[in-house]
Amino acid sequence: MTRMMTSAQLSVTLPEGTQATVEVPASSANLGPGFDTLGLALGMHDRISVTVAHAGLDISVGGAGEGEVPLDSSHLVVRSLQRGLSFAGVAAHGLKIHCENVIPHSRGLGSSASAVVGGLVAANGLIAQVAPERTLSKADLVQLSSEFEGHPDNASASVLGGAVVSWTEPANGGNGPQYFATRLEVHPDIRAFAVIPEVRSSTSHTRGLLPMHVTHRDAVFNVSRAALVVVALTQHPELLMAATEDKLHQQQRASAIPVTTRWVAQLRSAGIAAMVSGAGPAVLALTRQDIPATLVEQAASEGLNVVELGISDGAHLV
Amino acid sequence: MTRMMTSAQLSVTLPEGTQATVEVPASSANLGPGFDTLGLALGMHDRISVTVAHAGLDISVGGAGEGEVPLDSSHLVVRSLQRGLSFAGVAAHGLKIHCENVIPHSRGLGSSASAVVGGLVAANGLIAQVAPERTLSKADLVQLSSEFEGHPDNASASVLGGAVVSWTEPANGGNGPQYFATRLEVHPDIRAFAVIPEVRSSTSHTRGLLPMHVTHRDAVFNVSRAALVVVALTQHPELLMAATEDKLHQQQRASAIPVTTRWVAQLRSAGIAAMVSGAGPAVLALTRQDIPATLVEQAASEGLNVVELGISDGAHLV
Repeated sequence: MTRMMTSAQLSVTLPEGTQATVEVPASSANLGPGFDTLGLALGMHDRISVTVAHAGLDISVGGAGEGEVPLDSSHLVVRSLQRGLSFAGVAAHGLKIHCENVIPHSRGLGSSASAVVGGLVAANGLIAQVAPERTLSKADLVQLSSEFEGHPDNASASVLGGAVVSWTEPANGGNGPQYFATRLEVHPDIRAFAVIPEVRSSTSHTRGLLPMHVTHRDAVFNVSRAALVVVALTQHPELLMAATEDKLHQQQRASAIPVTTRWVAQLRSAGIAAMVSGAGPAVLALTRQDIPATLVEQAASEGLNVVELGISDGAHLV
Repeated sequence: MTRMMTSAQLSVTLPEGTQATVEVPASSANLGPGFDTLGLALGMHDRISVTVAHAGLDISVGGAGEGEVPLDSSHLVVRSLQRGLSFAGVAAHGLKIHCENVIPHSRGLGSSASAVVGGLVAANGLIAQVAPERTLSKADLVQLSSEFEGHPDNASASVLGGAVVSWTEPANGGNGPQYFATRLEVHPDIRAFAVIPEVRSSTSHTRGLLPMHVTHRDAVFNVSRAALVVVALTQHPELLMAATEDKLHQQQRASAIPVTTRWVAQLRSAGIAAMVSGAGPAVLALTRQDIPATLVEQAASEGLNVVELGISDGAHLV
């Protein structure tokens, strides 16, 4: 996505001291059948505070990822913040950024998408104070954040909140892929729980476990459940069990995440619509009831944390 | 699906002269990405009238199919009517049936599903007069009609009306496939047109053109569009063009239905969300506007009939 700069849109420089703070939600992707398509914004938020400085780049991180991620211009929040400013033709001589993170990394809860969306929405918060007509639209935020991610499901959930259906128009000629998403209002009876293990997972590794080809029958199976999950999420929670069945990614990756696979099966045996959250290892459970205490205790005894997260309304300035 | 007969449910015999009349809609299946999943009930209705006779089977047909279909117990309406009565434990010594058909055969407008659903709903109309507690539920009607068809998309649309998301639980042990469907309320701005050629098509032939395997990428493409088409049909008609893209069946069958393929492309070039209706050769177009007069005239000059059908509320007794 490019934007033509006209003479009326010469770069605007942010005054030193301009501030913005963003809360950005975690997300779950796939939701069973909706590979690279469905996303859900979860009620667990990282907080990013930005102040325009005289010069330089000062980034600090507290909470999840503290001491693990590079504190320089390669940091995802820095890169996406700068991308957002540059997209709008807005410049900053220096930036001071603090991230207070609660979304655990490499669990399938969309922490990288949250960092990217957080940086972009923080940029919007700064832009609004000097050139409100240049703030990025929700469609811009979906496109730019999905470009970082390479797929739109997590990023668009963190941008739009609620549940999302996202889709991609493949690269065409000189244009890269175009990403789109539309928000669904989740039925108020649906509660979202995550079962979060200590162990981490690499999405790039698990993505490599997917086959190049699938049977037409399995493709059609997921087509029917992906259509159904939209109905179940918005109107008919009683259809969530049938709607969250999948044949395109969970079984194929099962060997890489055996604990996750076992917990998805165990929760489903108890009548709870459980699925791998993104590429795992976290499990997402959508239900109208509590998770039975016996299961919560068993999970704890295995080092897994069962938390009710609720559904977020999307990234927002605070 | 079997139903246990108890001693309280011995067969009830219909009195001679009992009558029922049904109007049953045509349907379109697939709706682009939703192969064997999505269906739409169209405002074009066959009419079936049944009278219980002293003995024998007397079936007559007027309109579409007149003089072409067998007028004996192999007729789909006879078979489904008898299946419905038998499912409810209701017997008739003889039947006189008249079908007044308007749904053209072998065009991709679900005429066989309409016949099956019409027979079952007519049976329900008779059953209601002698044993109302034994009438078939909508779920029964979806199951029994889909068993005749082998897929639930057309049949459930004719049963439920509106648009439907249907799905199948595969055969398991001694049980055959179980069919399910849920109705969607179509956005009131959406208008349904059919472009109907004179030429016929055989679904069994075109089904044979589908590949055994598809790429994971194409499967995911249809997953995203099938989820999206539910949103487009119910809330966001402006997304119908993107939502009705498909990679799982239309291109694969294009060579068998070249006129259909060309008309789908031509309408889409004009910004109208067109797709193959079922396995064709009819084209379904969903739009908020008229079909441009120039296209209607061009179609007529090629022997294709463009008709606005609207959306039906499903099969009903009259």
